[in-house]
Amino acid sequence: MQKQKLLINGVRLKDELEKFANFGRTENNGVTRLSLSEEDRLVRAYFRTCCEELGLVVKIDDMGCMYATLEGTENKPPIVIGSHLDTVKKGGRFDGVLGVVAGLEVVRTLVENKIKPQIPITLVNFTNEEGARFEPSMMASGVISGKFEKTAMLNKVDSDGITFEQALNASGYAGASENRLKEASAFLELHIEQGPILEKESLSIGVVECVVGMVCYEIEIIGESDHAGTTPMNMRKDALFAANNLITEIRKRLGALDSELVYTVGRMNAFPNIHTVIPNKVVFSLESRHKNPEIIAQVEEIIQGIPNLSSLNEGCEVKTTKLWDRDTVWFEPEICNLLEQSAESLGYSNKRMVSGAGHDAQFVASFIPSAMVFVPSINGKSHCEEERTTWEDCEKGVNVLLDTVLTMLSK
Amino acid sequence: MQKQKLLINGVRLKDELEKFANFGRTENNGVTRLSLSEEDRLVRAYFRTCCEELGLVVKIDDMGCMYATLEGTENKPPIVIGSHLDTVKKGGRFDGVLGVVAGLEVVRTLVENKIKPQIPITLVNFTNEEGARFEPSMMASGVISGKFEKTAMLNKVDSDGITFEQALNASGYAGASENRLKEASAFLELHIEQGPILEKESLSIGVVECVVGMVCYEIEIIGESDHAGTTPMNMRKDALFAANNLITEIRKRLGALDSELVYTVGRMNAFPNIHTVIPNKVVFSLESRHKNPEIIAQVEEIIQGIPNLSSLNEGCEVKTTKLWDRDTVWFEPEICNLLEQSAESLGYSNKRMVSGAGHDAQFVASFIPSAMVFVPSINGKSHCEEERTTWEDCEKGVNVLLDTVLTMLSK
Repeated sequence: MQKQKLLINGVRLKDELEKFANFGRTENNGVTRLSLSEEDRLVRAYFRTCCEELGLVVKIDDMGCMYATLEGTENKPPIVIGSHLDTVKKGGRFDGVLGVVAGLEVVRTLVENKIKPQIPITLVNFTNEEGARFEPSMMASGVISGKFEKTAMLNKVDSDGITFEQALNASGYAGASENRLKEASAFLELHIEQGPILEKESLSIGVVECVVGMVCYEIEIIGESDHAGTTPMNMRKDALFAANNLITEIRKRLGALDSELVYTVGRMNAFPNIHTVIPNKVVFSLESRHKNPEIIAQVEEIIQGIPNLSSLNEGCEVKTTKLWDRDTVWFEPEICNLLEQSAESLGYSNKRMVSGAGHDAQFVASFIPSAMVFVPSINGKSHCEEERTTWEDCEKGVNVLLDTVLTMLSK
Repeated sequence: MQKQKLLINGVRLKDELEKFANFGRTENNGVTRLSLSEEDRLVRAYFRTCCEELGLVVKIDDMGCMYATLEGTENKPPIVIGSHLDTVKKGGRFDGVLGVVAGLEVVRTLVENKIKPQIPITLVNFTNEEGARFEPSMMASGVISGKFEKTAMLNKVDSDGITFEQALNASGYAGASENRLKEASAFLELHIEQGPILEKESLSIGVVECVVGMVCYEIEIIGESDHAGTTPMNMRKDALFAANNLITEIRKRLGALDSELVYTVGRMNAFPNIHTVIPNKVVFSLESRHKNPEIIAQVEEIIQGIPNLSSLNEGCEVKTTKLWDRDTVWFEPEICNLLEQSAESLGYSNKRMVSGAGHDAQFVASFIPSAMVFVPSINGKSHCEEERTTWEDCEKGVNVLLDTVLTMLSK
């Protein structure tokens, strides 16, 4: 079948994104749509209606994931397009929902152009990607891909003590395990970048080659909590000053490794945290991400060496504990090439890049050839009401998906 | 009247300190005796009985302070000896109570030696020195010396919502304002050092020349809370890294001022304090103490200059706010000389020193010639169950008080 040249309807895309944002829209034009909440239940019903109006067959799996399939003329593994409809509390109008509405717009464009694909196209809404109501994030794609144990996930509770299983049953979206995402030709996820790179470089499209690997450590420093007024400086074991020295040294060492490496001390707690008492304990997190496992290995070597920096510890004891790590997930190079070629052929500025954040696609990639497209986040903001992507960039992102789907259908 | 040579009874002192420690003794041999609690009420009753058995006249003022007076042969302003009987939660057996029991032992020694002093001797127990149940600390001495407004203090509430006034009335220790400490010849307060200096230098007696002045600032750093995975290092405004840079620089500058200067970052909070989010705000306290106001002025100049350290702020905004300060309170040099001479004549190793912590004597000093004696704190510990001073050092401290009182009586 020869490849057709088509473009999506940008006005329709924008209208649809705004309609989806009505489910949980906040005062400041953000969205609160926690997984399996009433807002989520309503947006799911609306999504189902949109799909059924297009003639798609909607199925639900045992984790509440929704699959809407446009039948193909041949019984082949489908091309899957999607992301998630849940948001964090006071999140934005683009994170997740863009990837679902993108699929809807791709199918609408095919349908209105009377294209009957020879292979099916399935739209997917993964349950609880954000992990904002029930930890962990990417819960359903994690279960489907065998990364998480289903029973453990069903027993996760939200802050009101409601289990995921209870919420799932109450939502009416507890389906059958045989409906889970299985074999497919490809999985395509369009998502906002959630970082500043594309905007900074004035690019519209990011072809995502991987989700970078990461390590997260906790560093605990034990000193002595003496009186701030009566203890001379040279008789102290100040855990906070020790933390200060060590963070400075860690930054110097990590900063010398690679310009693409990121590292963050996001959490830090001092004890007893009283202005008149020398801190006897400081605990901080240190997480670092890079696509190259060799760089991550060097990061770990540096972190594990922290307790040996005895000239910097102010007489305190220092302990490092690895909280977790995850390996870099590489996306399917052939699909990345197709996405890049589509962007090029459409005349959109683009670059290859990595994802520093986690996405459902990284789990799906373990059993389906997958790739992701990023569009710019204004000021790099996401997970907040200020989250924005221009309508033009949204449109370009969906056009790249459509073009790639058309290429796949032409083969 | 010629000066007599007497020594106190060390065994009796030890026994009495242990008896007082029975009121609120904790499992680990510490004491919890919050101000105006049931334990405090019982120890006050016991203290009153001890005083009355010695023939002292006990009066209570409107802040609940207790005064027990041994009449003098002449109607002169008394020599006042005392401290406080309240403790922090899980405090020790020496902080405060030592200074009260010391007065009791001094009077007992005088009485058993049939010494009728020509000037009265008054023992005092100041209410709520610790501020552990009702803030602020040194509440009653603060009201008596005009530093705190009485009505405001009466309205202070504890963690159960009980006002100081309610607790005072319920205790039965609400007395008359005309009983307040007024004119006196001297005020002497024996106290544990609460720091490591005397022990470190193997000395038994500290003659306290002043309570050092201090300043306390809060430094607030405002950055941006971007995603830890998706934001390149050079596009961040990391408030925690900025705080880290600034603390390093502050330490360098303050450390160059004077070896007796102390400075502490006791409290530090990062926001949102999540390992995957770059901190957008860090707030930390910075307090510093020194006896010399010129040094403190230099400290303030350094702190106020922090917002100008633009090469260290990681693109964040930095704001400093002065929370409070207090001037150095100098004790009466003549009394310090007497205390030193007593220690010398008794053959006790001693040194002049400063108090880094606050004490009732610093308020009393505003209207009565005052001074303090310190005895060593083992490992510098106080306000904890491990708080210890050797019985021998306690005895030496009280002997210094007795000898100084005898000198005063001989004049």
